[in-house]
Amino acid sequence: MNIAVLGYGTVGSGVVEVFFKNKANLQKKAGQELDIKYILDLREFPDDPHAALFTKDFAQIAQDDSVKVVAEVIGGLEPAYTFTKTCLERGKSVVTSNKELVAQKGAELLEIARAHQVNYFFEASVGGGIPIIRPLHMCLAANSIDEIAGILNGTTNFILTKMIREGMPFETALALAQQLGYAERNPAADVEGQDACRKICILAALSFGEHVYPKDVYTEGITKITLEDVAYAADCGCVIKLIGRAKRGEHGGKLSAMVAPAFISHESQLGTVDDVFNGILVRGDATGDVVFYGKGAGKLPTASAVVGDIIDCAKATGTSPSLRWNPSEGGNVASREENVTRMYLRLQSDTVKLPQAVGKLFGEVHTLNRAGQAADEYACIISERPEHEIDAAIAKLEGMGVTLMGKVRVLDY
Amino acid sequence: MNIAVLGYGTVGSGVVEVFFKNKANLQKKAGQELDIKYILDLREFPDDPHAALFTKDFAQIAQDDSVKVVAEVIGGLEPAYTFTKTCLERGKSVVTSNKELVAQKGAELLEIARAHQVNYFFEASVGGGIPIIRPLHMCLAANSIDEIAGILNGTTNFILTKMIREGMPFETALALAQQLGYAERNPAADVEGQDACRKICILAALSFGEHVYPKDVYTEGITKITLEDVAYAADCGCVIKLIGRAKRGEHGGKLSAMVAPAFISHESQLGTVDDVFNGILVRGDATGDVVFYGKGAGKLPTASAVVGDIIDCAKATGTSPSLRWNPSEGGNVASREENVTRMYLRLQSDTVKLPQAVGKLFGEVHTLNRAGQAADEYACIISERPEHEIDAAIAKLEGMGVTLMGKVRVLDY
Repeated sequence: MNIAVLGYGTVGSGVVEVFFKNKANLQKKAGQELDIKYILDLREFPDDPHAALFTKDFAQIAQDDSVKVVAEVIGGLEPAYTFTKTCLERGKSVVTSNKELVAQKGAELLEIARAHQVNYFFEASVGGGIPIIRPLHMCLAANSIDEIAGILNGTTNFILTKMIREGMPFETALALAQQLGYAERNPAADVEGQDACRKICILAALSFGEHVYPKDVYTEGITKITLEDVAYAADCGCVIKLIGRAKRGEHGGKLSAMVAPAFISHESQLGTVDDVFNGILVRGDATGDVVFYGKGAGKLPTASAVVGDIIDCAKATGTSPSLRWNPSEGGNVASREENVTRMYLRLQSDTVKLPQAVGKLFGEVHTLNRAGQAADEYACIISERPEHEIDAAIAKLEGMGVTLMGKVRVLDY
Repeated sequence: MNIAVLGYGTVGSGVVEVFFKNKANLQKKAGQELDIKYILDLREFPDDPHAALFTKDFAQIAQDDSVKVVAEVIGGLEPAYTFTKTCLERGKSVVTSNKELVAQKGAELLEIARAHQVNYFFEASVGGGIPIIRPLHMCLAANSIDEIAGILNGTTNFILTKMIREGMPFETALALAQQLGYAERNPAADVEGQDACRKICILAALSFGEHVYPKDVYTEGITKITLEDVAYAADCGCVIKLIGRAKRGEHGGKLSAMVAPAFISHESQLGTVDDVFNGILVRGDATGDVVFYGKGAGKLPTASAVVGDIIDCAKATGTSPSLRWNPSEGGNVASREENVTRMYLRLQSDTVKLPQAVGKLFGEVHTLNRAGQAADEYACIISERPEHEIDAAIAKLEGMGVTLMGKVRVLDY
């Protein structure tokens, strides 16, 4: 069975490395001979040990019927989308780490794969080297999944860990993450939450059976989190983590789905996921809570997930009927305003008596304290209610001259 | 596709319940119609909603060629072994939660399944509802697994959690576990570590490719753990957990494998696995550490894993080439005496100066303290060395009139 690798960046070169390193063992597991026949990249790699495999011509790969599996590790929407579609239509299975493409076009590409009796696998698109896609649709097949939540982005988790453990300010932690190669020079996709958003969309679609578009999921990054927020979280036994979550709609209603920083217990399975690690919690009706933990990114973990999918394609006959979801027009996610949540608030005013004002608007609250707290600062956790009510109450406070310094959801993980 | 369920105990009735509850969804995932045609049990269940399906005659099931998948949830070696063998030889796939049988006869039954082009699946045999067997041989296919370690028994973890969190003595915690239905009236298989031993044997065989017999794996239970040991563990940021572990032999040597209580960091992914939960850490060369967490036992979690395997059999054509290991004559595990480890020791003597005596025998140690420590008691962690050296040194101490009150391995998880 011949394989082509599209893209020779970090993941692509990792795929080639893992493949040749473990080739004998992989062939044993696949039950047949395997070889990488082409590597597609527009750049030149004259000194690469696999220089003979390089091509710049996608058509050469598409037209070679001996190529049965294609690893698309280019990333982004185009040309990845066109290449993937072409390969599937020509009867080649495609495996990928491209979360952006799966989150945007997953339902369509899975349907094309089904129609041509091949597979579209994307284990590496969520959680890097952590097995999550396959356990979700196979091992947990006998469950109805009610909720899925996770720390899905290693870069932001590294930054938050540095803030929590070492009291490092956000900007310093971000600079360190960039220096260590965990964050891009333009870190927006990580720190603004878009990367986590694409991943929770894929997990939600697979869990609940309907495509979920990133644009429909309220997404808030970690750029506004301060060391003061971290200190207040510690006061109630919590840590701040960037959580992507999706929950089945009740009574056939819309899904809830959101990406946002949250207070969670520092002793829980998700609360102890630190540094660049990821953790994903799946709540099934029969199995209860199951958590998957590991390195969510990096060359070799991600590449090993892609290669695992290649092996699986080699063993498969026809399409996997459990790896699919229905297309959707979008608009199937409840709005942020409808979300019901507990909320941490940090307020400042030198004229308003904050405990009294907050008590009037929110009833009983849990007051928080921190070392070095200013006399005109007040922080608390308010009880569960819809966010539109919280918005309205905050607007009232602001009308009274109160400044909102911090606002983070409090979740039960 | 017709299914037979052998055994209508806790897991068997759970399998039937989960199957009929989710039947429509399961058929969709399997891509075909499914039905339970027989339930085998020697007892009478006249009022059961599925009374019409019961039979006491195994031959009826074996001879019915419309039965393609058999769920063996009887447990124990016989008649489970004979029934499983007969079904596989007659071209029926078998799925099971029977860890004793897989640990004893796994290599042979997998080979029979292969020869008859059917499957022998046992996701439920380790970790209950946690997907671990399939991720190990599929998602992690592109890794060379170096080490696997876990909290594999929920009953002992519940008891240890009560000892650690509430200062409950072992006997009281065991009685509570029995009262809550977590422990059997005869708790030996749990508290003496045999259950965990069977599970680590299965994981080791799958990870390292060769059958590992429970009799070759040194197994120590939790019955000797005291609240004093728990307090000394806390003094160095540790908790005591019953850990099953297996490590690839270096330079082609024997495996190391063992089940024993151990000090591990209370902040690690395994250290935060509490109550009846299980956690399994897999260390791969490409993927790094991956941890799987969830309910390790219980009717519905285990049943959902069995039903997941049934679905997988329905989708499979032929045998899975990656789910197999080689037979072995046994004797492929290094002895306890060769094991190299750090060790916690708790010693008592009213005549010997313990710090000096210990220093002479073990060199530099990490001294531990606890509230209420008696004047003639001394506890410490000694640095890494082979257990035969530790044994010899302890024998020397005992020769001097020192009493060994506690001895627990210290592991880096």
